[in-house]
Amino acid sequence: MDPERNSSCQLLAGVGSDLENFDLLEKETENNENDRTYSYREPLLRKRTNTTSQIAIVGANVCPIESLDYEIFENDLFKQDWRSAKKSRILRYVVLKWAFALVIGLVTGLVGFFNNIAVENIAGYKLLLTSSFMAKAQYYKAFAVFASINVGLATAAAALCAFIAPAAAGSGIPEVKAYLNGIDAYSILAPSTLFVKIFGSILCVSAGFVVGKEGPMVHTGACIASLLGQGGSRKYHLTWSWLRYFKNDRDRRDLITCGAAAGVAAAFRAPVGGVLFALEEAASWWRSALLWRTFFTTAIVAIVLRGFIQFCATGNCGLFGEGGLIMYDVSAADATYSAPDILAVLLLGVFGGIFGSIYNYCVDKVIRTYSIIHEKGAAPKILLVITISLLTSSVAYGLPWFARCIACPTDLTVACPTVGKAGNYISFNCPSGYYNDIASLFLNTNDDAIRNLFSTDTTKEFHIYSLFIFFAAVYILGIITYGIAIPSGLFIPVILAGACYGRLVGRLFESISSLDTGLFALLGAASFLGGTMRMTVSLCVILLELTNDLLLLPLVMLVLLISKTVADNFNKGIYDQIVKIKGLPYLEAHAEPYMKHLVASDVVSGPLVTFSGVEKVGCILHALRTTGHNGFPVIDEPPFSDTPELCGLVLRSHLLTLLNGKIFSRERILCREEILSRFGAFDFAKAGSGKGLKVEDLDIDEEEMEMYVDLHPIANASPYTVVETMSLAKAALLFRQLGLRHLCLVPKSQGRSPIVGILTRHDFMPEHILGLFPNIKPHNN
Amino acid sequence: MDPERNSSCQLLAGVGSDLENFDLLEKETENNENDRTYSYREPLLRKRTNTTSQIAIVGANVCPIESLDYEIFENDLFKQDWRSAKKSRILRYVVLKWAFALVIGLVTGLVGFFNNIAVENIAGYKLLLTSSFMAKAQYYKAFAVFASINVGLATAAAALCAFIAPAAAGSGIPEVKAYLNGIDAYSILAPSTLFVKIFGSILCVSAGFVVGKEGPMVHTGACIASLLGQGGSRKYHLTWSWLRYFKNDRDRRDLITCGAAAGVAAAFRAPVGGVLFALEEAASWWRSALLWRTFFTTAIVAIVLRGFIQFCATGNCGLFGEGGLIMYDVSAADATYSAPDILAVLLLGVFGGIFGSIYNYCVDKVIRTYSIIHEKGAAPKILLVITISLLTSSVAYGLPWFARCIACPTDLTVACPTVGKAGNYISFNCPSGYYNDIASLFLNTNDDAIRNLFSTDTTKEFHIYSLFIFFAAVYILGIITYGIAIPSGLFIPVILAGACYGRLVGRLFESISSLDTGLFALLGAASFLGGTMRMTVSLCVILLELTNDLLLLPLVMLVLLISKTVADNFNKGIYDQIVKIKGLPYLEAHAEPYMKHLVASDVVSGPLVTFSGVEKVGCILHALRTTGHNGFPVIDEPPFSDTPELCGLVLRSHLLTLLNGKIFSRERILCREEILSRFGAFDFAKAGSGKGLKVEDLDIDEEEMEMYVDLHPIANASPYTVVETMSLAKAALLFRQLGLRHLCLVPKSQGRSPIVGILTRHDFMPEHILGLFPNIKPHNN
Repeated sequence: MDPERNSSCQLLAGVGSDLENFDLLEKETENNENDRTYSYREPLLRKRTNTTSQIAIVGANVCPIESLDYEIFENDLFKQDWRSAKKSRILRYVVLKWAFALVIGLVTGLVGFFNNIAVENIAGYKLLLTSSFMAKAQYYKAFAVFASINVGLATAAAALCAFIAPAAAGSGIPEVKAYLNGIDAYSILAPSTLFVKIFGSILCVSAGFVVGKEGPMVHTGACIASLLGQGGSRKYHLTWSWLRYFKNDRDRRDLITCGAAAGVAAAFRAPVGGVLFALEEAASWWRSALLWRTFFTTAIVAIVLRGFIQFCATGNCGLFGEGGLIMYDVSAADATYSAPDILAVLLLGVFGGIFGSIYNYCVDKVIRTYSIIHEKGAAPKILLVITISLLTSSVAYGLPWFARCIACPTDLTVACPTVGKAGNYISFNCPSGYYNDIASLFLNTNDDAIRNLFSTDTTKEFHIYSLFIFFAAVYILGIITYGIAIPSGLFIPVILAGACYGRLVGRLFESISSLDTGLFALLGAASFLGGTMRMTVSLCVILLELTNDLLLLPLVMLVLLISKTVADNFNKGIYDQIVKIKGLPYLEAHAEPYMKHLVASDVVSGPLVTFSGVEKVGCILHALRTTGHNGFPVIDEPPFSDTPELCGLVLRSHLLTLLNGKIFSRERILCREEILSRFGAFDFAKAGSGKGLKVEDLDIDEEEMEMYVDLHPIANASPYTVVETMSLAKAALLFRQLGLRHLCLVPKSQGRSPIVGILTRHDFMPEHILGLFPNIKPHNN
Repeated sequence: MDPERNSSCQLLAGVGSDLENFDLLEKETENNENDRTYSYREPLLRKRTNTTSQIAIVGANVCPIESLDYEIFENDLFKQDWRSAKKSRILRYVVLKWAFALVIGLVTGLVGFFNNIAVENIAGYKLLLTSSFMAKAQYYKAFAVFASINVGLATAAAALCAFIAPAAAGSGIPEVKAYLNGIDAYSILAPSTLFVKIFGSILCVSAGFVVGKEGPMVHTGACIASLLGQGGSRKYHLTWSWLRYFKNDRDRRDLITCGAAAGVAAAFRAPVGGVLFALEEAASWWRSALLWRTFFTTAIVAIVLRGFIQFCATGNCGLFGEGGLIMYDVSAADATYSAPDILAVLLLGVFGGIFGSIYNYCVDKVIRTYSIIHEKGAAPKILLVITISLLTSSVAYGLPWFARCIACPTDLTVACPTVGKAGNYISFNCPSGYYNDIASLFLNTNDDAIRNLFSTDTTKEFHIYSLFIFFAAVYILGIITYGIAIPSGLFIPVILAGACYGRLVGRLFESISSLDTGLFALLGAASFLGGTMRMTVSLCVILLELTNDLLLLPLVMLVLLISKTVADNFNKGIYDQIVKIKGLPYLEAHAEPYMKHLVASDVVSGPLVTFSGVEKVGCILHALRTTGHNGFPVIDEPPFSDTPELCGLVLRSHLLTLLNGKIFSRERILCREEILSRFGAFDFAKAGSGKGLKVEDLDIDEEEMEMYVDLHPIANASPYTVVETMSLAKAALLFRQLGLRHLCLVPKSQGRSPIVGILTRHDFMPEHILGLFPNIKPHNN
């Protein structure tokens, strides 16, 4: 260390914090490093006393999380790179980006199709086997077979999840949402996660859990996009050099947005809905060009799916044979409505919103409870899955016994009771010519159960009493199933419960409303989706694409608006809740009202470490080793400038690469030319998650520690800055809108150090700010 | 003037420009004032030598344009205001904003409905009258009646437009797009414009022009929203005090976005399409909350329209009786397709894109030519309209004579030839039992012609030859009609030509493709829309909602993607072109590649005028009178601070209000308390366009000129700043993303003036930058 030099290699305390806070900061210096990579464990439910403890609990495992670099990093190398960029390279870039969108669409469509075929066949044969025992009146044997297949499938899924990729548990949409917001949770988009997500999802859905494959499909799409975007996986020897083109977080973000859209498109066969889902729910930053590219991706998905469905329509795909592009066609029903119908629909919307928010509340509590179990290791995780599986099997097999057998309608075009495969009328324990309506819902795949509930012109198919039992069971099973360590989507449970609720309401209003009960089921599903997910346009379009009925559009819009409005009074959307539970530092699009009371320097935390323009190697290494910072301001001093001035910002990863190249000098001199000739922009390109150089990888000897290295060529010469007295609300807006990772605070008055602090994502987190200023009431203006 | 004081009231030349540019700036000082209100006239086609001449040619009239203030202006008054804001006020704000969205939806729906009824009735009775003369074989009389009614209606529309509101001419979508980008062209959203837009549009569409009512509906929706947003119109004595709540540009922008969405929803009966149109094409800044609010607005429109259509279905609305929520239902057609169909569709997309870009090119040339005529005054404008009207009438009446009569099909459920009202089979000159296919397209409203072209299972209804004639005529008429001084939408001409083109292609591929010609017509319309408008998702959804056929979705997506890709190689979208022709300084969402070569200070233009924290009244007045600036930096000096520092930014309008209040002092002292007690935030609220205080309105005597006024309370203490050496691309990104009007440049090194320039919208315009640096090639990276 060089004791003479003052302005660099030193620790400046956070400015603007009053004395009390300063004490707090002093005490926390060890843990409280700005923008560090958080990796320590902390029990989820412990009271947060440390204001900066951000941990990611992904699938109930504590994982390191890292911020992504979305800012354009304009250093000399970058400038040299794009100045020398030829037209052919730009063309290649554009072509490759479109080609990637194409590949993402193709692969996601393929996976979606494979997923459907696998589920339909596994679950289909399981149900056939069960019903064959039922037909022979071997009821206990039937249950044993049914339950043990379910438990077997569930255990396989849980084992995959627990031992290979814990990050694959859950829906995946919250994690994708967080990634697109700039938070990279460890291994969330890794190849192992992709593998487990695909197969785990198939196993779980086949196992009869009240879970969907839609959330996992979104995650799958994002994983595929990520794998492409970082040029394959080194760990699994799947690397293609020509794919390593998008070595920055911005391009990867774009691809992953396409992947998320493709996932929804493949899950619901809803290409426009996929685009809108990516826009409304998933993406935090959006550009018009992205709209077009996601649109292209989902169009490819639609074409792929259509092709395969046509192929399967001829009976090549086992039990997966029927169905067109539209899953639940309700367009046959007459969609005229009058005042009493609208009244019924309004009530449906209001209660749908209430039920939706209760659902969110319960899911939140259940996840927090389960996480205590998950903390204890893999065995308890798997045991929990087995328990829930047994419970689900018992409910699905037990409740139909409470139903009365219903005589088959006489005017049917389909067989009743259903023979051979899953269908509308399952006989279960009923004599010939009769069917069991609860069994028709429970002993079917979730998709078929929804199709049955949406079916039109079949008002009397289900008893009110049976609908009520099924609704209660599915509502509760949906809540207790989400949170166990398996890939589990939320859409299908919510649609299932909502459709049942809607059909129930339709039956209750039978006397005053002439709307078909199938349409009521659709509106019920809309109200539940609005009440839990809180999306509007994308849900509306997804429902339209699912049901092929544009004439219901005004009613669907009305229901969604009402249920969302009602539910928003109680809590936040389910994905936002999960993001919060997982401790991901999600940046909201708007600034909180209390931020207007504070200025930017109020919330700066941690010691600021700055470097000189030409810095001593040992000094850099010391800083890299002792702090977790990812960005370091570089300050130019005489003789390189007249007065101390902010030269730029360097990133940890760039410093590591530069030190690894060992272009050192014995004197404090500039060596821009040498660095620019030895390095290309590609050397500093962002590596895939967890793949970059680490400080331990450096091999620097004692002599080199005393040498100097020129940081100018790798310093981002135009970092975004704000004056320390800017209101925090405006600084937050700037930070969020431009997708920054570091925001430099400059002093208001002259004559001080040219930089007084760095704001990072965690400085804008409500937990951090309210920890520093306990007197602020967060919900008061 | 106070000669002793140096740092204030002085003119600093733009920094960073090299000597040559400096000369240029010096010469231009008179005209070249940053962010001035442009109001001088300049012939449109004159070569632009002056790099900063921005003019708005709205409806071929040269109008003053002004930037809008979207930045949060955090001065002491603002802070006092929201600190004292009670919960009840916030609640009132929220309720009022939703109520406004409701009212916008209701009124736009009503206007859309009224528009449809009026057009159907006026045009319907005109066509009935003509056909009654035709039936009597009085062919010349029929033409005389037809043409004279058309000319009469056209003249009325042109007169309205020329004498009452020239800004109502054209589509209106480019102007709304510019407004939402932050450019307020004079009277573009005024009540008179609204009036002329509604009635002019009805007259023009009834007059048989190849124009649509969709663009005007978007403009109408925006006007209605603007009228509400600024609390009515003082000029027309339509003011409601309780409406004057949204006295800032941000809230108005939100409302106008809702209005634009409501316009599309009302025009196409496409509520989801309306939301997406607002998102994809109209809005420059988008928030998730806005998605929800526009969705609500368009839902209201859908409900209003549905109610009225049900009312009219019973025959209460004259000739407007038929039709449901869907305009052109093609869902009856079988939508299975195979490889040859897809090949045909690919070709259709490619040529659709080429035709679309040629359309844009021609429209551009025609507008530029017409603007020379428009420059000459009202009479030439009206004469041009009459000429085009006569030409249109002649073409519509003349071309059917070239058609051969076709025998009516025998398996029809409708009458053939059509009797009584417009329909599929118009007899024109044909004997009984025959119909004239060209007349069936020309002597109908445009809506009916499109419905005929989209009709399915009627392959042989139109001769290939007739389709070709109609296509050529409509394509050319569409081009020469846009640009004349009447309200004229672009959607319908493009859909009409595209549908005809598609049907033609369908007939040509008849032998190899089994797709219905009606579906080909739909795909043709999609390809033309993609080729001219260059939207993707919103067009896709609008077409789906128009035609009620979700099964065609993959094909529509494919066609849109191809035609847009092809057309993008030749020129820009038609709305972008019109924005450019009108000289509106539209800020693109992305930075141009050449901006990476420049730094922020390179493009600063004009003299910088700064004020001291406590400034002499005369000095402020002088600056206000001699410059057109809208923002002035305020610099604090000793004794108010240790070193000169940037205290904030004041706006012209705020200065005028402050001076009008006359809180002056004889000494240079702070009088924050007095100002805060005398003024409320509402006094400084943004007035409606053209309504604010002007510098001529001030009455300040000689003695007061020598007094001082404290600018601190009205200065925005945290303006966004960038360092002068920041790359222009990054500064542009900041400027655009945050919706700024002024961006302050601060010096890199200490010891200089705390502010070195202000960047405004026009500094980022390519014309300005390429004028300063003629060596830069704009399309080179």
